Amino acid sequence: MAKQNIFDNEIFFENYQKLREREVNANNLFEIPERLKLMPDLKGLRILDLGCGAGDECSEYIRMGAKEVVGVDISEKMLEVARERNSDPDITYLCMPMEDIGNIEGGFDLVVSSLALHYIEDFKGVVKNVNRLLNEGGMFIFSQEHPVVTCHEDSYGSRWTKDENGKKIHCNLANYGKEGERNTVWFVDNVKIYHRMFSTVINDLVDGGFAIERLVEPEPSEELLEKYPEYYDLFHKPDFLLVKARKV
Amino acid sequence: MAKQNIFDNEIFFENYQKLREREVNANNLFEIPERLKLMPDLKGLRILDLGCGAGDECSEYIRMGAKEVVGVDISEKMLEVARERNSDPDITYLCMPMEDIGNIEGGFDLVVSSLALHYIEDFKGVVKNVNRLLNEGGMFIFSQEHPVVTCHEDSYGSRWTKDENGKKIHCNLANYGKEGERNTVWFVDNVKIYHRMFSTVINDLVDGGFAIERLVEPEPSEELLEKYPEYYDLFHKPDFLLVKARKV
Repeated sequence: MAKQNIFDNEIFFENYQKLREREVNANNLFEIPERLKLMPDLKGLRILDLGCGAGDECSEYIRMGAKEVVGVDISEKMLEVARERNSDPDITYLCMPMEDIGNIEGGFDLVVSSLALHYIEDFKGVVKNVNRLLNEGGMFIFSQEHPVVTCHEDSYGSRWTKDENGKKIHCNLANYGKEGERNTVWFVDNVKIYHRMFSTVINDLVDGGFAIERLVEPEPSEELLEKYPEYYDLFHKPDFLLVKARKV
Repeated sequence: MAKQNIFDNEIFFENYQKLREREVNANNLFEIPERLKLMPDLKGLRILDLGCGAGDECSEYIRMGAKEVVGVDISEKMLEVARERNSDPDITYLCMPMEDIGNIEGGFDLVVSSLALHYIEDFKGVVKNVNRLLNEGGMFIFSQEHPVVTCHEDSYGSRWTKDENGKKIHCNLANYGKEGERNTVWFVDNVKIYHRMFSTVINDLVDGGFAIERLVEPEPSEELLEKYPEYYDLFHKPDFLLVKARKV
């Protein structure tokens, strides 16, 4: 199975950095707060962060009281930024594909992953490894692109139908039932996403030894909509799916 | 909370009867086989069927070995048909809204519901009662219209975008994130459906004391598509969601 390392592509990397630095984006407004709300008290926990990127979350978890964080990322470029910007004696960065975590030492209380698992073909395999790396009763909390997003391939046509004023009136949902690789354009061509239906995500977790504790499909609050009305489109199509699961 | 009894509407009732009598329909091709696949061995079980309608499933469960089936339906008309067509000393039919099952005697091994829960506003309340009526380790297996279907209201416009040959190219997904009542037209005006996001269905089950064991979003097999090519549209938009959950 090919392991994608799009973050080491220079054009992708530069554009991605700029995106994440913008103050107002869907990550900052929805993904981060909803993920933090799912978190238990991190005091004294050993945490594994899968797809840690520039390590901002690793630092955040240490600030929130975690005893130790191991950040794993496939991209050496991202980890260079991480070591520069988010260095801490209690954070260890490992450069490896998420598919290879079977080789690292276990004993984690919590495994977290933010918007990385939709880049992974072998989700089942990652789930199995995460289960093995967790202590009894340990938690797996992750976010991914929502299944009604990952189903889209740019070659299918536009994701939206808009009215004459450019207002999005509905999302164009196609091929949701056809799982597998999608080639999308995001700064560069051929960024690969792996689409899984909602049921597959949940069933793979159950089969991998997890109990589902909470699902979140984030939506804008009324206050947020007043400030950023462009996010009304999340009512038509959620961007993210967040999952909190417990090792059983 | 108003409890809808659309099945006692005469026009609705007659059309619904005709639909269910057609040999080839989505219920017979997808919902029924997938629901039966989720079933445990029924031998000796006490089963409660919520929204049993004409009782065909109640009879089927007895044939499959169930010791006793209680069928609940809000529609006296449907239960008249059930008593005529699916009478059995081991089946009891009760005419009541599903929201009122809190009053019946418990001790069930399995609670089943086929395509009825999307008519119910108070899903949380039903889940709570189902949990109470089940024996330890008992199962709740149900199907409902898929969340990408229940979100639609006919006043939002067409559910599909078609090409010049009438082929469905995508489903028009709108207002998925806005839960609650929908007024749809199905034989008669104002058939009320209650839309819940995927996450809400699962979270309400978890909060109500269930562990999710399996989810199914049925799709046509290649053989089935050859025979009934019109069902390719399920790849764009699944019609059904099936859930198997265990009382914990």
